[in-house]
Amino acid sequence: MEQITIGLFGFGKTGSVVAQEIIEDTNLKLCWVMRNTTMNEGEYASRILGFNHDEGKIFSVKNTDFETFYKLNKVDVIIDFSNPFSVNEYKNAGDLGIRIVSAISNYDEHNFKLLQAMSKKTPVLYSPNITLGINFLIEASKLFKKISPSADIVIIEEHFMKKKSVSGTALRIAHDLDLDSKEHIKSIRVGGIVGTHEVIFGLPNQTIRIKHESLNRAAFGQGAIYAAKWLMDKDKNMYSMEEAVSSLMASSYQ
Amino acid sequence: MEQITIGLFGFGKTGSVVAQEIIEDTNLKLCWVMRNTTMNEGEYASRILGFNHDEGKIFSVKNTDFETFYKLNKVDVIIDFSNPFSVNEYKNAGDLGIRIVSAISNYDEHNFKLLQAMSKKTPVLYSPNITLGINFLIEASKLFKKISPSADIVIIEEHFMKKKSVSGTALRIAHDLDLDSKEHIKSIRVGGIVGTHEVIFGLPNQTIRIKHESLNRAAFGQGAIYAAKWLMDKDKNMYSMEEAVSSLMASSYQ
Amino acid sequence: MEQITIGLFGFGKTGSVVAQEIIEDTNLKLCWVMRNTTMNEGEYASRILGFNHDEGKIFSVKNTDFETFYKLNKVDVIIDFSNPFSVNEYKNAGDLGIRIVSAISNYDEHNFKLLQAMSKKTPVLYSPNITLGINFLIEASKLFKKISPSADIVIIEEHFMKKKSVSGTALRIAHDLDLDSKEHIKSIRVGGIVGTHEVIFGLPNQTIRIKHESLNRAAFGQGAIYAAKWLMDKDKNMYSMEEAVSSLMASSYQ
Amino acid sequence: MEQITIGLFGFGKTGSVVAQEIIEDTNLKLCWVMRNTTMNEGEYASRILGFNHDEGKIFSVKNTDFETFYKLNKVDVIIDFSNPFSVNEYKNAGDLGIRIVSAISNYDEHNFKLLQAMSKKTPVLYSPNITLGINFLIEASKLFKKISPSADIVIIEEHFMKKKSVSGTALRIAHDLDLDSKEHIKSIRVGGIVGTHEVIFGLPNQTIRIKHESLNRAAFGQGAIYAAKWLMDKDKNMYSMEEAVSSLMASSYQ
Repeated sequence: MEQITIGLFGFGKTGSVVAQEIIEDTNLKLCWVMRNTTMNEGEYASRILGFNHDEGKIFSVKNTDFETFYKLNKVDVIIDFSNPFSVNEYKNAGDLGIRIVSAISNYDEHNFKLLQAMSKKTPVLYSPNITLGINFLIEASKLFKKISPSADIVIIEEHFMKKKSVSGTALRIAHDLDLDSKEHIKSIRVGGIVGTHEVIFGLPNQTIRIKHESLNRAAFGQGAIYAAKWLMDKDKNMYSMEEAVSSLMASSYQ
Repeated sequence: MEQITIGLFGFGKTGSVVAQEIIEDTNLKLCWVMRNTTMNEGEYASRILGFNHDEGKIFSVKNTDFETFYKLNKVDVIIDFSNPFSVNEYKNAGDLGIRIVSAISNYDEHNFKLLQAMSKKTPVLYSPNITLGINFLIEASKLFKKISPSADIVIIEEHFMKKKSVSGTALRIAHDLDLDSKEHIKSIRVGGIVGTHEVIFGLPNQTIRIKHESLNRAAFGQGAIYAAKWLMDKDKNMYSMEEAVSSLMASSYQ
Repeated sequence: MEQITIGLFGFGKTGSVVAQEIIEDTNLKLCWVMRNTTMNEGEYASRILGFNHDEGKIFSVKNTDFETFYKLNKVDVIIDFSNPFSVNEYKNAGDLGIRIVSAISNYDEHNFKLLQAMSKKTPVLYSPNITLGINFLIEASKLFKKISPSADIVIIEEHFMKKKSVSGTALRIAHDLDLDSKEHIKSIRVGGIVGTHEVIFGLPNQTIRIKHESLNRAAFGQGAIYAAKWLMDKDKNMYSMEEAVSSLMASSYQ
Repeated sequence: MEQITIGLFGFGKTGSVVAQEIIEDTNLKLCWVMRNTTMNEGEYASRILGFNHDEGKIFSVKNTDFETFYKLNKVDVIIDFSNPFSVNEYKNAGDLGIRIVSAISNYDEHNFKLLQAMSKKTPVLYSPNITLGINFLIEASKLFKKISPSADIVIIEEHFMKKKSVSGTALRIAHDLDLDSKEHIKSIRVGGIVGTHEVIFGLPNQTIRIKHESLNRAAFGQGAIYAAKWLMDKDKNMYSMEEAVSSLMASSYQ
């Protein structure tokens, strides 16, 4: 199989972990990394991460001419872990057939519309929680609810003490299962727990639990890689990670 | 919806719990219960179980003329929680279009062939572990393995101290996930735990757990009811509980 | 060791399970069972429970002369799983040196005062939740809080859907750990879960969980037996199950 | 309270996390850090870790005169997270009343004897697994076993896939509970789980679980700090972390 070529926006805490995952995956090639600052410009992400070869040359938004950049540095997929504004820098990349995986969680309306406009020209997958496990948990929970509509359902989410608000992922689980989030989500806040989500289904004589534990942020990289591979044979459109997961689940039955 | 009419073989520890579940389900009607002994013959299962109406008249194998019984006491579905020999008593019921749900776990070859022969004439669902939850756990686990083939998998089963052998259900999970049972099943034996099965999927940065806890044997009744309802619009054939669950899961995607 | 002789008040759902536990414990002898009704009067509890010997003759409150009963039927310990009024029937038993284990949960003031008055004459242990496990969970949690006072604490209790109010046991855990129950208890209500209590201690880099799962009400019998044995060498006074458990824990350190 | 002064051996992956914990604890002062290499010599550990003040000046074993070092840089406690040989560098520190906390896991006989010799002159606490949680888990488990000697016990340990051997901590738990490790430890190896140890106590009608989850290696720092504080008022002797934890637990009962 030919390698899928990747351009990565973002090289902060999460971005650099994602870069590492891409470099380690032999099916993918990290062609370049685009940063907001000029830090490490011209160096290779691979070297910074401790690899012994050159992969993922680092560019800076500040010194890049985006009129020509994508022609000279064409990739199969752009993965974006940077910020809501970066879509402005790659909004024309779709004309070249470049696919987009965006894991940005806080788009304003203007920038989100730019992303949506791209999906008229190229496949775009947008998911603020891009881990494989959470999206499986949601899909499997929807299936169990369908099989056993009378089951009682509670969502437990555990996070570190300082996380004040209810987990956005828990809210999405509740939404997708048609549950009132106030009543059905129980939030546990103690110590330094990275992040756990559990859906409990109670029947009179049996209990089913589906539980996802995040160990660290590299889970995002694996999700993005899964999304990038999945986008390769898709038509232009807007997709979610949930669709990527459920379409593969559905294919099991065909 | 018209009630589905049920005949039940078996009124022992499990059978009587199953009878209770059937009586409590307003979509079903328990027409009769067939016992091996003559105990409680002529009484109503409903009365013995504390209900205030007559439902589920008790017959004894010893005093029943099976040439005429099924014509006079036709039902939509026979549910069998008795013993491997009972299939001899209802082997001709398929000619009348009566469907079969068998939860017998230890057929010898001869009796199992009788059951298989019936499936040429009428829909037969056979499942030694007929709970909804376990069959969902298996199907969901197969799906996750498909999405994430590189995940490490371990099956933990917890049961009461005196259960000496590895859980048959755990062996089936291992089989269905293509895992070596010796290596991948961990058996916990302590105290009076009714029965718990958990499949753990480990990825480098996240863990997914699907866990089923049995609270008591009434879970079998609910599974059998689910199977009986599912059989109603099926063609003659041999089915498993796994198929019943997965077909409903598949229908979510169509 | 000589057998400890027991008289049991109550032979309902819980009482009969407690009787079974006592009969099965070779260190104990069930001398009699006192019932409110005249049902099974004169029979043996052991026979009703399926044993092949006579143990635990059944008496009825209605036909018993309590002036003479305890002299003729002296026991080491009375265990009470009946109702708040029974203390009236045994209030003078302390004069004969009979110890009391009361697992009654809803005493009114008058009857509770009778129980307290008995503790001036004989050892009395009173505990509305008399399981060994819950009392250990409380004591161990208090210890961890002492070792690690900065740990965040959450109590999760899981029970069947129909249990509307917060678990009394969870409230007691919160009280004993000096926690605001509204803020620190999370109640899960689904399906048919018998009863689970978990205390989670969160530190920045590790999490400790102590979890108690009730499998069925026989746990009460074991707790009562533990309490009865523990009372044997105690002086007259009012004791709690927590004290019985913690005193044994303390003895580990002396 | 006056600050406890600390000297730290080791500034590798674990050592630097431990340094961070010490700096953040207002009851402690990190006076110096001793490294094997000359890397960062003369800099301050605090600066390297992102603090805005000077704390923990870095020295190198290579350029240090240990004849005079401890007199010029006296501390209350040396904490050692470096390697089995470092004890040679501080073997005379006990003459100055400096206490030792050693978290080294693989001493050879010679170096371990040096450590033991020190305990004739000064308080030494030695613990290869120095987390508070694990030592509490062990002590609490011993207590439950004492209360309920008939309970069945299983130890489950979960770690990342690549950890081949049985967890040393699990082996210690088994040893301390007098259990055959082959029979009672179940090792789960999947994905990237940091480290979880669970002791399950099974009784016929209830189950107790005590579970410790490591989130990251900073847990070692907190344990070492706890040990250092605990050593402050102790007499010269060899102590274990288990003793430090259990003595505080015991003090609850006095």
